[in-house]
Amino acid sequence: MKAFTCIAAAATLLALSAPAAAQFAKPEDAIKYRQSAMFIQSQHFGRISAMVSGKAPFDATVAADNATIVADISKLPWAGFMPGTDKGGNTKAKPEIWTEQAKFKETNEKLMAETAKLAAAAKTGNLDTLKAAFTATADTCKSCHDAFRNK
Amino acid sequence: MKAFTCIAAAATLLALSAPAAAQFAKPEDAIKYRQSAMFIQSQHFGRISAMVSGKAPFDATVAADNATIVADISKLPWAGFMPGTDKGGNTKAKPEIWTEQAKFKETNEKLMAETAKLAAAAKTGNLDTLKAAFTATADTCKSCHDAFRNK
Repeated sequence: MKAFTCIAAAATLLALSAPAAAQFAKPEDAIKYRQSAMFIQSQHFGRISAMVSGKAPFDATVAADNATIVADISKLPWAGFMPGTDKGGNTKAKPEIWTEQAKFKETNEKLMAETAKLAAAAKTGNLDTLKAAFTATADTCKSCHDAFRNK
Repeated sequence: MKAFTCIAAAATLLALSAPAAAQFAKPEDAIKYRQSAMFIQSQHFGRISAMVSGKAPFDATVAADNATIVADISKLPWAGFMPGTDKGGNTKAKPEIWTEQAKFKETNEKLMAETAKLAAAAKTGNLDTLKAAFTATADTCKSCHDAFRNK
């Protein structure tokens, strides 16, 4: 049973890492890639944040545009967390990303799901609907950062 | 006539810069944002490059996925070229971006158009069609970099 678990875990790791590993010329590129995606995402999410917190006037079209970009970009960073990229650059990645791959993958998928809901909520043009989806997304960001990102 | 040209130019600059300026907390964020978008784009474009040059096996689905991301990301960098971001960070931006805004905007639009064609070409699954669109896109990248980016 233990051996099977090991093989299953190895297979999962391989499935997660093989295509990603082929995508970057060097580990630094993978780190830069995931950080670039996260930064772009944070900028667009921040614009929605400003609106839901009342720091900026609510503009449904702008909110929807930003939320769509957040949802699209949320698909990208994960390929950058390939094996061998736990050190390098100014990465804040915790080792748990690689030692707890199933949990990490689960949080990645949760973010993609929540940002898709955010984009759908933004398209309704209803600020309260947007606020609820924003909070759910922000919580998802935070729980993943708490578990997998150093301060 | 000269005055009108000046006013028209000022209006164009304002139209180009006002929404962008409101989007970033500080100039460094704008520079980091545009560089992040360009980097992500280069990574995905590079994967198509590897396929059309024969360095990687042609996989129509992978090519289409990458081309779609290139087309989506091609819409992003421009907001980052807001006034006051000609210096700072490790920017390679040439002053011509701001002194020749109409020409710069034209190249931005050309890239968006060519990457949309690239995405459509990739979806055909035909390598020769993809190659033609890839070359047209690469030429567009190069002409803008030659005119507006320092080495």
